[in-house]
Amino acid sequence: MLHKAPFLLSATQAEVIQVLRQTGQASRTEITDITGWSRAKTSQEINSLIEKGYLVETGVGRSKGGRKPRLLRFNSQLGYVVGVDFGATSLDIALADTNGTILNRRAEPTDIRRPPEELLSRCNVLILEMAAEHGIQPEQIIGIGVGVPGPVNFSRGVLVAPPLMPNWENYPIRIFFEETFPAAVVVVDNDVNIMALGEQRSGDAARIEHFLFIKIGTGIGCGIVVGGKVHRGNDGCAGDVGHICVDKQGPICRCGNRGCLEAMAAGPAIAEKAMQIAREGKSELLRKMMNERGGLLTPEDVNIACREGDEAALEIIRASGQMIGEVLAGLVNFFNPSHIFVGGGISNFGNHLLVAIRRTVLKRSLPLATTNLSINFSRAGADAGIVGAIALALEHLFVVEGNPHPLQ
Amino acid sequence: MLHKAPFLLSATQAEVIQVLRQTGQASRTEITDITGWSRAKTSQEINSLIEKGYLVETGVGRSKGGRKPRLLRFNSQLGYVVGVDFGATSLDIALADTNGTILNRRAEPTDIRRPPEELLSRCNVLILEMAAEHGIQPEQIIGIGVGVPGPVNFSRGVLVAPPLMPNWENYPIRIFFEETFPAAVVVVDNDVNIMALGEQRSGDAARIEHFLFIKIGTGIGCGIVVGGKVHRGNDGCAGDVGHICVDKQGPICRCGNRGCLEAMAAGPAIAEKAMQIAREGKSELLRKMMNERGGLLTPEDVNIACREGDEAALEIIRASGQMIGEVLAGLVNFFNPSHIFVGGGISNFGNHLLVAIRRTVLKRSLPLATTNLSINFSRAGADAGIVGAIALALEHLFVVEGNPHPLQ
Repeated sequence: MLHKAPFLLSATQAEVIQVLRQTGQASRTEITDITGWSRAKTSQEINSLIEKGYLVETGVGRSKGGRKPRLLRFNSQLGYVVGVDFGATSLDIALADTNGTILNRRAEPTDIRRPPEELLSRCNVLILEMAAEHGIQPEQIIGIGVGVPGPVNFSRGVLVAPPLMPNWENYPIRIFFEETFPAAVVVVDNDVNIMALGEQRSGDAARIEHFLFIKIGTGIGCGIVVGGKVHRGNDGCAGDVGHICVDKQGPICRCGNRGCLEAMAAGPAIAEKAMQIAREGKSELLRKMMNERGGLLTPEDVNIACREGDEAALEIIRASGQMIGEVLAGLVNFFNPSHIFVGGGISNFGNHLLVAIRRTVLKRSLPLATTNLSINFSRAGADAGIVGAIALALEHLFVVEGNPHPLQ
Repeated sequence: MLHKAPFLLSATQAEVIQVLRQTGQASRTEITDITGWSRAKTSQEINSLIEKGYLVETGVGRSKGGRKPRLLRFNSQLGYVVGVDFGATSLDIALADTNGTILNRRAEPTDIRRPPEELLSRCNVLILEMAAEHGIQPEQIIGIGVGVPGPVNFSRGVLVAPPLMPNWENYPIRIFFEETFPAAVVVVDNDVNIMALGEQRSGDAARIEHFLFIKIGTGIGCGIVVGGKVHRGNDGCAGDVGHICVDKQGPICRCGNRGCLEAMAAGPAIAEKAMQIAREGKSELLRKMMNERGGLLTPEDVNIACREGDEAALEIIRASGQMIGEVLAGLVNFFNPSHIFVGGGISNFGNHLLVAIRRTVLKRSLPLATTNLSINFSRAGADAGIVGAIALALEHLFVVEGNPHPLQ
């Protein structure tokens, strides 16, 4: 039987699905308690969800005295979902069941500037390989969540004027995947939004109402969660904080403006400053490293130099953290989140960056907005993207009749 | 019969209330169509709401062939609500029915630095006067929405470290009003949040998902609407954009930091710059006005000089608009709203300010975020605050059992 996602629910069936998403599994009595419905009504709704193949009733829960109750959970036979997380230079991809448990995964280097057909074909190969290892047919893939490092028009599922991946502009990613996986609902989102979703699935962030996820790497972006949901804005491009101005006299950014945060504090700027310092002979270690590396330094080299006690390298990282902190200070005043999670390649540079960010935010934001504010590394870490891509696919498996939004 | 707000609803009753809030009035058939319930269930829910005194069935709607249907609407006998809008130097107060129609209103100058007992007692006098003119008893006031020009801890209903009104810190505004109006639910919020609510009730803004309301006056603040709801943040202080830094070398702000937007672009900064220019003899008109006004100029004087063609005054207003635009450009990248509404005393300075804001935002924000962005004067205008204060009270009249949030 081919289940083609998204699956339609009535408003009351959606309530049952929501309870199971929160609890993982629940007995009929527990669902009756949470929804407040009569036992008859609860039974009717649950039976229709079982008939449709969305839920199964298995195992036994804890008894409260009488017969041990059976437990409801998502039918893992309903199908499988895939998470695809594209970075500028990396591809992470995983296969999961409808409860979000990862069954199989792959990671490999890539170059996002290559043509989309080529990179997406490679995804297909990897997905089919992983599926075959579990005896899963392409028709059983019911959802694919895709994260890409560029601005996405979320409702259309395409990239719009992506600076890192110009070949992908308006490329129909959904249609590409649907040709091989006809039962799948394909959802495309910005990489930072899926990292925020991934963070929400990790630790206790599911209970955090308002948080920011800031990704610092080749670029700088921000995932925004408001009232527990990712805020994508009117055009789907919310969170593009990399082009907020930190210095009107700063260098020209690839966006055409002067002194954008990204142009001054992200990975390439860190490497560029280190090379300048090496050329000027202000750091013996950086000069030596640059010579050894054929005249070029990477952000990771700056990190290594910093760990070896190089003052100039430390100062570059501190200055970067301070500029990121200045922008975040304004956003804390504006948005008043309870948590900021810091992730991405540059965030692995240890505590110096985080301390500089924290210190600047505390100094520049209003006291009322920072009293309860926590600024920490992402708890999901390197897995934020892939966990989020799977969550994105799962969120879009069900829709409520008459409601255009997915059941989040 | 004393109705003590907030009124408890079941989840299904709340759906009926939501339909009536959106439509104003509706027939039983229309409610059945929108909720998708059976006729029997719809009738049962509506009858219980009528029995509780929340709704009445009156008048006749348009017939679709058969008998003309009767229409449901809120029971205006249920009680009345009051909106209180405190500015730094003004008090606006209005009495409305449960449909939000204003029955009576008062406006007078005030000084928010006076003790809260004194100013709130004056509110009581005005409310009782207005109520008496309509034969309404204090016990019939079921909701009071209060807007104040300072940071509010929304859940506690008190001001926290308010710079303009230090006497009010932690003052129990709710308890004060409840002593005279025992049936009322009292809700206190920041003035800009209630202006955003007021804007939402005006024109077609109710259908706008994500917008900002920026108030420019003695201070600069921002109301944030996300998914149709006011975003107050984790500590209730979201939208405090007046203390975002625009110039690290700028003057020291009353918050202790340097170069805050408010210290550089709000009313007092505009007046200060004009006086400096007058003293330096760079504008004959401003110098003349300052002499006539006993050595002081107000922001309104700068506006007058600008209208009379004074170039220096125009430049002050343009510079102010540009700085506000720079901060908004960053917020547009971050939040991606579809609309920005500009209100407050300084916004009445005509098009020069708005044009400077627009130009800077378009220049500094990312193209994808500005393609569909509209920046305009508030449509609610001077009434935004009072309409919003009434809306705030109405929003908190009903709560759903088991849900801590008001039925918005």
